[in-house]
Formats: sequence, C-alpha cells, structure tokens
Amino acid sequence: MQLLDSVNSLDDLRKLGVDELSKLAEEIRKLIIEVVSVNGGHLASNLGMVEVTIALLRVFDPPYDKVLFDVSHQSYTYKILTGRREAFKSLRKTDGISGFIKSSESEFDVFGAGHAGTSISAALGFAAERDRRQGKEAVVAVVGDASISNGISLEALNNVRDTTNNLIVVLNDNNMSISRNVGALSKAFGRMLGNPRYNRVKSAIESVGIRRLKLSWLRKTYHGLESRIKSFFLPNAPFENMGIRYIGPINGHNIRQLIDAFESAKEANLPVLVHVDTQKGKGYMPAKKNPENWHSSNPFDIETGVRIKCDPGDSWSEVFGNELVKLAEKDDRIVAITAAMGNGTGLDIFEKNFSDRFFDVGICEGHQMTFSAGLASAGLRPVVAVYSTFAQRSIDSVIHDIALQKLPVVICLDRAGVVPGDGPTHHGVFDIALMRPIPNIVIMQPRSAASLARMLRTAMSLPCPSVIRYPRSCAPLCDDADDGETIPIGSAAIIDSAESPEVAIWTLGNEDEFSGKTSELLLKSGINSVRVDARFAKPIDEALLLKQIQEGVKIFLTLEDGVSSGGFGTAVEEFINSQPESDVKVIRMGWPDSFVTHASTKTDLMRLYGITPEAAAERILEVKSKSGRF
Amino acid sequence: MQLLDSVNSLDDLRKLGVDELSKLAEEIRKLIIEVVSVNGGHLASNLGMVEVTIALLRVFDPPYDKVLFDVSHQSYTYKILTGRREAFKSLRKTDGISGFIKSSESEFDVFGAGHAGTSISAALGFAAERDRRQGKEAVVAVVGDASISNGISLEALNNVRDTTNNLIVVLNDNNMSISRNVGALSKAFGRMLGNPRYNRVKSAIESVGIRRLKLSWLRKTYHGLESRIKSFFLPNAPFENMGIRYIGPINGHNIRQLIDAFESAKEANLPVLVHVDTQKGKGYMPAKKNPENWHSSNPFDIETGVRIKCDPGDSWSEVFGNELVKLAEKDDRIVAITAAMGNGTGLDIFEKNFSDRFFDVGICEGHQMTFSAGLASAGLRPVVAVYSTFAQRSIDSVIHDIALQKLPVVICLDRAGVVPGDGPTHHGVFDIALMRPIPNIVIMQPRSAASLARMLRTAMSLPCPSVIRYPRSCAPLCDDADDGETIPIGSAAIIDSAESPEVAIWTLGNEDEFSGKTSELLLKSGINSVRVDARFAKPIDEALLLKQIQEGVKIFLTLEDGVSSGGFGTAVEEFINSQPESDVKVIRMGWPDSFVTHASTKTDLMRLYGITPEAAAERILEVKSKSGRF
Repeated sequence: MQLLDSVNSLDDLRKLGVDELSKLAEEIRKLIIEVVSVNGGHLASNLGMVEVTIALLRVFDPPYDKVLFDVSHQSYTYKILTGRREAFKSLRKTDGISGFIKSSESEFDVFGAGHAGTSISAALGFAAERDRRQGKEAVVAVVGDASISNGISLEALNNVRDTTNNLIVVLNDNNMSISRNVGALSKAFGRMLGNPRYNRVKSAIESVGIRRLKLSWLRKTYHGLESRIKSFFLPNAPFENMGIRYIGPINGHNIRQLIDAFESAKEANLPVLVHVDTQKGKGYMPAKKNPENWHSSNPFDIETGVRIKCDPGDSWSEVFGNELVKLAEKDDRIVAITAAMGNGTGLDIFEKNFSDRFFDVGICEGHQMTFSAGLASAGLRPVVAVYSTFAQRSIDSVIHDIALQKLPVVICLDRAGVVPGDGPTHHGVFDIALMRPIPNIVIMQPRSAASLARMLRTAMSLPCPSVIRYPRSCAPLCDDADDGETIPIGSAAIIDSAESPEVAIWTLGNEDEFSGKTSELLLKSGINSVRVDARFAKPIDEALLLKQIQEGVKIFLTLEDGVSSGGFGTAVEEFINSQPESDVKVIRMGWPDSFVTHASTKTDLMRLYGITPEAAAERILEVKSKSGRF
Repeated sequence: MQLLDSVNSLDDLRKLGVDELSKLAEEIRKLIIEVVSVNGGHLASNLGMVEVTIALLRVFDPPYDKVLFDVSHQSYTYKILTGRREAFKSLRKTDGISGFIKSSESEFDVFGAGHAGTSISAALGFAAERDRRQGKEAVVAVVGDASISNGISLEALNNVRDTTNNLIVVLNDNNMSISRNVGALSKAFGRMLGNPRYNRVKSAIESVGIRRLKLSWLRKTYHGLESRIKSFFLPNAPFENMGIRYIGPINGHNIRQLIDAFESAKEANLPVLVHVDTQKGKGYMPAKKNPENWHSSNPFDIETGVRIKCDPGDSWSEVFGNELVKLAEKDDRIVAITAAMGNGTGLDIFEKNFSDRFFDVGICEGHQMTFSAGLASAGLRPVVAVYSTFAQRSIDSVIHDIALQKLPVVICLDRAGVVPGDGPTHHGVFDIALMRPIPNIVIMQPRSAASLARMLRTAMSLPCPSVIRYPRSCAPLCDDADDGETIPIGSAAIIDSAESPEVAIWTLGNEDEFSGKTSELLLKSGINSVRVDARFAKPIDEALLLKQIQEGVKIFLTLEDGVSSGGFGTAVEEFINSQPESDVKVIRMGWPDSFVTHASTKTDLMRLYGITPEAAAERILEVKSKSGRF
C-alpha cells in the first residue's frame, strides 16, 4: 500500500498524476474489501465510488467546498482520504468510526446521512447561505440513481432554480440502487446510458483521449452547443424541466474524464447535474456479479466470497417472508409492498412466488404507505415491509391515510431496535413511541419464529391497521410450535413464574436471556418474579396487569428494544397510574433520551447505556427499599 | 335554486344539457358562497372547481368509478352533487358534514384526505387492484398545481408507468396554490398556459366550437398527431418523461370542453393527465381579486366581503410573525422557511420585511426541514413555520437531519391542538407525542402573546433544535408584558396558588379558564390547589414537581391540547413514577386515543370528549377518595 500510505492530506492527493490516481484507486479498493470482510459494511456501492470520490477530492476542496453524500453508505473512500485512513480499520466497531457521514466525526463531514433523499435538499441550504454572503465555495450533492427519485430529492430538485444559481449534483448511476431500480426517472437514466448514439460517441471520445477534448467538448456541452448536443445524446433529459444543466454520462471509473467533468461543473455557475456511470462491486468479483447481495454485508471470506453467518437459524426477515408466502397461498387478497428493500426485508421470497402481487415502489417511503392505503381501500390486504428507521418517513401516511380510515394495512417493521454496526441513523428505536399515539392501530412484537407466524395471521384477520416489529437478528425457536391460530388482541403470555411473585418482568420481543438473568438475580435477593411476554405494545394486556397487582405484584419492570420514554413501558405505566387504588411502581428499561451510537454488538450497546440484568435487579431493590412497599 | 333542487342523483345530472349545466354551476356557486359565509370554510378553490366537478360527474360514474381528491378542500361541489345537497348547510358544524372527503361519510368518498399529495399515490392503489381483477372502472385523481409538486405526488407520478396502464390525473391549475406557486414544475405549467401559440389555437378552437372538433382534435391529440401537437403546444411537457399522456390545457370553466376532455381521457386506456385551467374565487369578486386571502375563510358578509372576526386581539400567527421580524432586525442570521403557508403562519409579515431571507419551498414538508437543517449547518438560524398536522410529514427529517446533528432549527407549529371546523385531518394533536421521544429537542407552548415573544427569543438562543407550538386562535394578553428576557430551559411558572395545595394543576398553553374553573370546583370541595403554566413539554420542570411533592401535593392534574397518551402529561407521569419514594398520582387530560371529529367550536369538542373542569374535579375527588392519600 505504498501510494495510499503517502497520501496524508488532500494536498498530497493533488500532487499525484492521473495514472498514480488509478493505482491509488486500486489500493483503496483493496483496503475497503479487507476492512469490510472483517467488520462488515456496505461493499458494492463503495467499490463503485472509488474513482468518483478521488476525482471529487482532486477538484473540490472540502471542508471549504461542501460535499454532501446521500445516504452516505458510499462514503468510505471519502473517509479514507480525509484523515481517516488508519481509523478506517475501526469502521462500524465499538469506539470506531461510523459507516456513514457523521458531522461530529470530522470537519470534512458537513452533513450526516443514513436515509435516502436528503443531500440535494440540505445542499440547497448550504448554497442559499453561501449565496447570501456571496461566498465562492462549491456545494456538491452526491446522490444515487435510487435516492434521486425519493420524494425529498424530487421536492429539492423542483426547488433548485428558485433557491440558487450554483449547485452541483453528482448523480451516481449504478443502475441498481439497493436492489433494482424502479420508476420513470430511472428508466430515463437507462435510456441515456443505453442510447446507442451515446455509446458510439463516448467510445470515439475515449479513443481520441479526453484531455485534448476537454475544453472543446465538455465546456461546449453547456456553454454553446449544449442544446444540440443534449438532444443528440439525450432525447428525454429529465432535468431540463427542472432548470438544471446536464453533463454526462461520464464513465465513473475513468478518473481523467471525471476530473474534467467536475472541473467543468465547478466553473459553470449554474445548477449542474453530472451523471456518472459506475459499476457496483467493481474490483471484487462476487460483489460485481451479485451487487444486490453485497449491498450491505456481514463479514466474509475474501477468497471464496462466503459470508460468515453470525447466528444459527433463519433471520426474522426470512421467517417473515416464508410465513407471508404461506398466508398468500390461501388468501389471494394479500399483496406485498416494499420501498426498494425486497431483499433486506425477506420479500424476495414472496416476489419469487407471487411476482404479480409484489410492488417495489423504489425508495418512496411516503408513497409506499399511501399506495397501500389505496390498495386496502380497494379491498386488498397489503403488507408493507420496511425498516423501522425508514418508516419514520411515513408517519403521516400511517396517521392520515391508513389509521384515520382504519384501513387493514399490515406494516412489518424490520430492523426494529438497535442496528449496532450502522448506528444512530439506522437504529429502529423510535417506532413504538411514534406509532403508539396513533388511534386504531395494533402494535406487536414476536418473541419467536412461531410467534411471528401467529402475529402475521392475527394481523391479517384484523379490520384495522397493525404493526409487527422485529429486529435484525435470527428468530429464536424457543417458543412452542406455531399452532395455526391467531392471538387474542392485547393478550400477553406468561413465560414462567415463581410462587407469589412480587415483581413482574414484562418484555417485548425476545429478551429471554435478559429477563431470565434478572429473575435469577432477584431470586438471590429473596424476591420472586414472574416473566411475561407482552406480545402487544398496543393495546397492552390490562387484564393481566390488574390480575398480577391483585395477586401481589408490587413492581413491574418493562424492557423493550426501543426508547424508554413514550413506548411500551410507558403504556404500562400510563395504565397502572390510571388506577386510583394502585400504588405499584413501574420501572421502564429501554434506550435513553439520547441518540444511541454505533457499536460492534447489541451487548456492547446495552452495557454502554446501562441496560443490564444487574442494573435492572439493582433498580428493583432500590425501589423496594425506598418505597417500603413489600 | 330551481335546477339544483331537481338534481337528486347523478342520473338527474346526466339528463341536463350543457347550457343547463352552466346554469347549475351558477346555482352551486351561490350555495357555496352562502354556506361558507355562515359556516366558514374553503372558498376560493371550491369556486374554481364547480364546472370541473360537474363535468367529472357527468363523464364518470362514482362510486363505481373512483374519484379521489387531493387535499379535498375543493370537494364541495362533489359533496353537493353526491347526495349531500341538504346536508351541505351543516358543513363543518358540530354533527354536520365534513369540509373534506371522508370515507365514513359517503360511499362516494372513496379516499379521505386533508394533507397534500396523496391522491395520485392512493389512486395507483385503486388502479392496481382493478388491474389485477381486470376491472373496467376509471380511477381519477384530482390534484392541484401546488400539491402535485409535493414529494408523495412526485414519488407516485414516477411510479405510474410501473403500476398501471390506466389512470387519469386531473391537474387543477389555478396558478395560485394556497398562496403563490413555487418550483420548476409550476413554472412549466405556467409556460404551457402562457404559450402564445396555445392561446391562439385555443381561441380558434373555441370560436369554431369544440363539439365539431371533438373526435378530430382531442383524440388525435393522443392517438395520432400527439407528438407534433404536443411539441407545438408544449415545448417542455414535464410529464413526457413520466410516461403520462398529456391533454390540455383545457378551459376549466367551459363545461363542454371539460366533458370532451374527460371523455377522451376515459377512453384512452393510458395514463393520462388532463390539465385544466381554473380561476380561484370565480364568481365572487372579493375572492377572485385576492384568492390567497380567501383560501380558507372565517364567516363573512357576502355584500362587503368583510370577515367576521371571532376573537379580539391578534392571532398567534400574527404575534409570531411580528416578534420574528423584531428578532430578525437584530440578528441577520435569522431566515424563515414555509411550505406554502406564508399567509397562514404569519410569515407574510416577515417576507414583507426581509424578502431575501424568506424561503417558500412549496408544499414540501420533508424538504422544508432538511433544507433548514442545511441552512443551520451553514451557520444560519432558520425558523420553520408549519401547521402542526403537516409537520407530521417531516418527523423523520426532524429526527435524522435536525435533531441527530443537534442543529438549532426553530420549528414553530401553528394550528397546534384541535382545529374544530377542519376536523381530524387538520387537528394538530399528535405533535407533542411524536416529538417528545426525539433527543436533543426542546418543546414549548406559550400561554400569552408575551410568552410567545420570550419563547421565540429563548429558542433563538439555544444550541439545539426547538419546537414552539400554538393553536389557531387569538393570543391572550393575560400575561405580564414581555420582559425582553429568555426563559430558563425547562422552567415552569406558577400562575396562582392557595395555601398548602394538595392538588397541582399543570397546563400547557393557555388553559386558564379551564384550570381556574377546576380550581374553584376543588375549593368548593375543600381542596386547595396551585396552578402552574408548564411552558415546557420537554424538558419538564422536574425541580418544581419535586418541590411541590415535598410541600404536600398529592395529585397532579395535567391538561394539554394534544393526545393524552405520550404527550406532556405522560412526561410528568414518567418523571413522578421514576421517583422511588413518591406515591402521588398524575391525572392526564387531553384528547383520547381516537381520531377527534370536527365540530363548530373547541368547547363543543371538549364537552363531547369529556374534557371539562367538572370532569377534572370529579376525577380528582375520585382519586383522592379511592387512594386514601389525603
């Protein structure tokens, strides 16, 4: 890694010739593959963005120039070249650097991201501020071909001309997005890339060598002959109507062409979109062959491309996909909707079986819910599978389109709870607190694979919307087998109980290890407890709570993989407090009122935030002694 | 009203000739003006849509054909002609019909709405279901020129071609939206309407009479000569790239042309957009002259156009606008952002003073927040003013773009709490419960005009995001004058107190009448109370709560104009429950866990849902007697 080792600043980078930059790109690629093979992370998109990032850093001068990455899972090369080459080995680890742009991590990270569609919108903010003080720095938004058709992106694109005369959008077109691309815009991109005239002209240019053509070709593209050239290259340029000048398509792995294109954009003093054509997974054959599977990866063996599986058993996503297929075989009203996450959510299994009942709407979190509301209004039984953190985008659609009309949409929140390696942009910890205030809705979380099957069946039987949340991990088989039945709404289940328990431990989801350990610790202090699988965060099992109070429970401990304020524990607390006679206490455990960082494992995070059986037992003993209750 | 009285069904409508339909339109217009002048409501947009709706109901056959209205504030004519002519007089009143499409109100209302951008998305759901069973009905989405550039609309438009081959979008272009139109798309619409060739051709057609041209002209528009005609009429048709066939522009007040256009669209078997050119406020001179002011109106005098002012004093919006101007005079980092609500939020005052520091981004709720995050990242102090209910759209932008990066964006939530006449789509009752789980954020609500001034100053001094919420009403002047200071974060203020109070009444916002009455009722039962202006929903004044407990308060009553679960009262309850020693009770009052209906007044709603001083006092007495606490 001789060359990369010598690049300690952007100044060092600027000293390298174009041939050296190509060598540097290969070294960076190797480093990314090595680190991701050990730490896990986003592979395919980062391998595609190496040359583009090198060219950006060669032409622009962050942090003076502002470079914003959409989603920012493609920012590894940026991190490596902006002072984090050594730290890169700690990527996604406890106390290591983040896998995403994070403004508190580096001055080069001007705007953090993890969700799609924000870069152009935020970049307009930077541009408007610059314009006000007549600053000269460039503002660059780097956005993928999937993110650009997200609603916030489109809103921002529609506002570009009203906001600034100087903005650069780099459209990273890998023609793939996370899974495949959908929508009219992406088809328009495809037409550009696929236009045979474009390809012929491009090859001609490439064979001549772009350096000689730089001034004559690229600048003319937007200064003089642009309209003729544009209509020659791009019969349907979708940005024309947005008032944005188009440069491209540019070979995203040709550093020379990229530098020329970015320099031209930099001098344009116009809103410009540079369309770069990149290859996901470039430089690592398994990822290049199957980029969808290598979007975000667990650790893997570099030689074989074989993933290191962390847990035994199926993931919650797989259980969900398989169970949904079973239900759909019997009920042809069932349709499935995803926002570009068919693979991640397990809906790929559904698609294989029922391609005509499967809708991938692209990264359109709002539309996916409102569209589902339409499907449900028309009599179908839509099932939306979405990561919990991305569902934050569609809260209003859930309220206004689904719940207000009491439409039976089933919302399956994958990656609910912490997602340790990804960190705060991806933790699904707010969903219960955000959804619980919504009327007409049922919220569940399974403790086992069999429980998820039952909950899915239950959701399908309801005349109202429902939410089923589950984490990114393997689904335990601890429970009894699926009995083929539904679950009575709002009914909890006792896991086990000592005689005459004074403490009840109510957990949501599979927290058996935690509750078991807490129970043991209490027993050592002479306190009997009962363990309850809450199953429902809304409505909660009020009857069982009252029964347990009558039978002598004085303290309820709740645990959830979500924020502790406003969530399931708060529901228990609100109910118990509403009983005039009750004097029992509720101790809520969950994530605190601060953004939870990233870490290697959930265990690390729980330790870091004091969510341990020891802390739980201690708190119970404290409440017992101070309240003088029993 | 002879003609309208005879139209009791859509069949009756279909029997009328075109000239009679024009007469009917005038009668409907008169009815709308009369009812809105008494009940309040949306005037300008409804006056613009009379002929379009008549033509739609003449050509399409709801509820067999599905007609969806975006926002649906323009649906009065639809309601009048679909069985609600008599009920229309009860518009927006307690027990009356809703001012919006409401699926529980009529089988003709297939998809309810109140927020912008949902109609195309939901219509795609209906279309997809129809396509699956090879149904023949038409699916029509009626959307305004402002709503169509909302993110969900754009996401849906981008998905049309992937979803169905048969959808009709009626673009109601009144070139105005709620205030003025922004964005590249609306400029493209403007170019179409303003194209002199279009106008010349249109006049020629109108003078010949469109009936004779029907087959030859309109059908050819999309069947044969469409590309030539399109490029002649529309050099930059923005829908071309979306794979949507364009028909228009059509004079939105010429019933004959409208019927022809809709018939052509109905037979097209293609995604079609019909562009209709309407005039907001048509038929009522004051509204036609100043449609922005007549978007949503209080009751008014028809002759003079003078509004009947409900309360004395300035509205909260006006107080906000004026105070922001004062602050902005001293701090040039302050900029203001609105999503097409400059007028409604009081920011029009700011714009008049600082037009270069004012950004109207159009109805783009997500973009407005992410854009503001960019502005704040660049060092400015953005103030976003938005209706509480519409801010539900931007929860993720607040979490992911603003709060996670701890950016000092000030979010002013107008119309927080119930908005009686508008009802469930517009009540701003979820904001506290949705925002309180977000870390790094401060949430306030003023009790008086002076308090709002202080809170705005306080917000501006913070290094983190903040929310100030206030209702749609006049700002009381009850408080002392503005002292020019900031408020210590998380500090409540005692309003008044009896000696050794056993009950503390904590209210958020101005609930003085309620708390005063409750306090009186308690005193009659021999219970002393203290009244507290909470000021902050996050963080709450924990020190004062503890002090009051120490001084003998046994019951806390909280009242907020928001859902009672998860909101301010829950914050108080969570804190008090977390004290191991405490055995005091919290009684939370607020809106229940169901969607709150519309009504004539807030008082009606409070009575309907049992939120009264009598109920509060009764509940306190119950808790006192059952708990045996004091």
